[in-house]
Amino acid sequence: MSRFFSERYASLTPYTPGEQPQERKYIKLNTNESPFPPSPGVAAAAAEEAGRLQLYSDPESKAVTAALAAHYGLKPDQILVGNGSDELLNFAFMSYCDETHPALFADITYGFYPVFCELNRIPYIEIPLTDDLRIETDAYIGWDGTVFIANPNAPTGLALSAAEIEALVKARPDRVHVIDEAYVDFGAESVLPLVDRYDNLLVIQTFSKSRSMAGARLGFAAGPAELIRDLNTLKYSTNPYNVNRMTSAAGIAALKENDYYRRNAKIIMENRSWTVTELRKLGFAVTDSFSNFLFARSDRISGGDYYRRLKERGILVRHFDKPRIDDYVRITVGTRDQMEALIRETKTLLGECAQ
Amino acid sequence: MSRFFSERYASLTPYTPGEQPQERKYIKLNTNESPFPPSPGVAAAAAEEAGRLQLYSDPESKAVTAALAAHYGLKPDQILVGNGSDELLNFAFMSYCDETHPALFADITYGFYPVFCELNRIPYIEIPLTDDLRIETDAYIGWDGTVFIANPNAPTGLALSAAEIEALVKARPDRVHVIDEAYVDFGAESVLPLVDRYDNLLVIQTFSKSRSMAGARLGFAAGPAELIRDLNTLKYSTNPYNVNRMTSAAGIAALKENDYYRRNAKIIMENRSWTVTELRKLGFAVTDSFSNFLFARSDRISGGDYYRRLKERGILVRHFDKPRIDDYVRITVGTRDQMEALIRETKTLLGECAQ
Repeated sequence: MSRFFSERYASLTPYTPGEQPQERKYIKLNTNESPFPPSPGVAAAAAEEAGRLQLYSDPESKAVTAALAAHYGLKPDQILVGNGSDELLNFAFMSYCDETHPALFADITYGFYPVFCELNRIPYIEIPLTDDLRIETDAYIGWDGTVFIANPNAPTGLALSAAEIEALVKARPDRVHVIDEAYVDFGAESVLPLVDRYDNLLVIQTFSKSRSMAGARLGFAAGPAELIRDLNTLKYSTNPYNVNRMTSAAGIAALKENDYYRRNAKIIMENRSWTVTELRKLGFAVTDSFSNFLFARSDRISGGDYYRRLKERGILVRHFDKPRIDDYVRITVGTRDQMEALIRETKTLLGECAQ
Repeated sequence: MSRFFSERYASLTPYTPGEQPQERKYIKLNTNESPFPPSPGVAAAAAEEAGRLQLYSDPESKAVTAALAAHYGLKPDQILVGNGSDELLNFAFMSYCDETHPALFADITYGFYPVFCELNRIPYIEIPLTDDLRIETDAYIGWDGTVFIANPNAPTGLALSAAEIEALVKARPDRVHVIDEAYVDFGAESVLPLVDRYDNLLVIQTFSKSRSMAGARLGFAAGPAELIRDLNTLKYSTNPYNVNRMTSAAGIAALKENDYYRRNAKIIMENRSWTVTELRKLGFAVTDSFSNFLFARSDRISGGDYYRRLKERGILVRHFDKPRIDDYVRITVGTRDQMEALIRETKTLLGECAQ
């Protein structure tokens, strides 16, 4: 840090994204990307828009917002798009937390939540997962603060039902509940249809996972119009043209070709089942994932070793060097071929360990 | 605002972007966009990248950063790209201002600076322009605080020389000077070559204006490696994948085709000269602009009326309802045809005013 850097941020520890190695070709199962390219209309729409880049994007992002509203049966003023869902999560932390309104989230969840708190000088309370790594919504009722729940949770992949979340939202009408549904399209229940009924529920989703658009940066918040207006106040105070023209066009095209993405999600869920079975046969403990990744550990190899040995063999997974979960690795579910390679290499290296 | 919105932001007045009307086709001279489309390689590069959107963008944006470093003769660790220059300006306000380090900027300048201050609860001091709307760098020496200067300044179009800025940077080695060079490619002097020599100089530029990429959102900061590291700390704490794949590829392609953009800038400067002459013939006072816009007023029509009457005639310019400058309008310099239309309509409506 320079000698000029504000003391406000002097002790900030930034988020560490998963490795994006450029030097070597890996089977990349470490950042929960889709193994499938975007649908054909996406590239065509983005390319067409690329010829008009001299003009600013619409600061209201009307076209993609209308397309999302129509797709999800909401009104346009119930949607706000962002430059990835991280931007919208930050706006939500800013809007609903401060010195007197702490954030509440699980002790094991998306690692960016505590960073947003440090960034914005927001106190936070980590609610422990159960011993079997589940979120217990009852544990949140007694604490005061704004709730952030990733559902399915990362990196566990475990999901709450919509009814469990609705009960929590109803139990505490005095505060906002932000449900981060980045991975919801792989078999979990979305609470997005509930935003019409509660003024204290905000849902955040992304095009990065099930819609194969991680590299385009498109996320959206869905919620009651009043909450969306709050987030807009912050958007217009930081980056009014936050979503570029090509990404908006790509998002609209992706919504038109939704069947393609549903088929892909189905394939990923089938590959997930197959991989869980194979890993369990090898003695791994694997959580019941509702996401496009698995969270697995073995008594025969430590999480760190498993990660390193797979990397030597050309397969990248993610290991979190963090209490309670350092035994585990998180494995993105890719194509069947990629999963077969994972199992093959796992068998080989476990054989080595046993020697 | 909702009943949950944090008091921190309750009184925030967001930035108001220029109108982006969708309903009617205007000659659009209100947001300082280029009248020229991006160069042919840009659309091709973006389109190719659109087929790989399932993968996250490189959080280090290595490729476009290296291309910028090579283009400007800097090292990659002296550059940070952002989702438009607004994002980087916000990081600079966050990094170098706080309760005890106010921001200093002109009373008439880019309207986003006070918004960034309100957003981040930073006190600020507005240093008045001279009566002829110039920035006097000497007026900044005696004040304590971090300096933000748009050069050329907006909406006046007036520019400081590199020597004037260097003298200021040298006079106050104890603080950072942020030079916002959004419009520098239309004839002003850049201080970008000086970032190797001073540890307290940060330059921010954009691809939105001279490089016809407003709709792609690509800005960059150039400065000593230590300052760039500060900004990176904030980037990784808000939005690590801030620049999408298509925009990075477009930026690299634009740098390769730089001659195209230099020719366009030259045409815009010629059209600027022509328009200044014509407006002065009609009795307008016009500043000596070094940017791609003009700042003009007439004793024969108020700024607000001129804006409204041009709009009725299908020409959009920008009017700021703000003390000292509400007599003026800001007119983007477009193609020769667009400028001729502006002069023609101005003559007509002044004729009407005289009746």
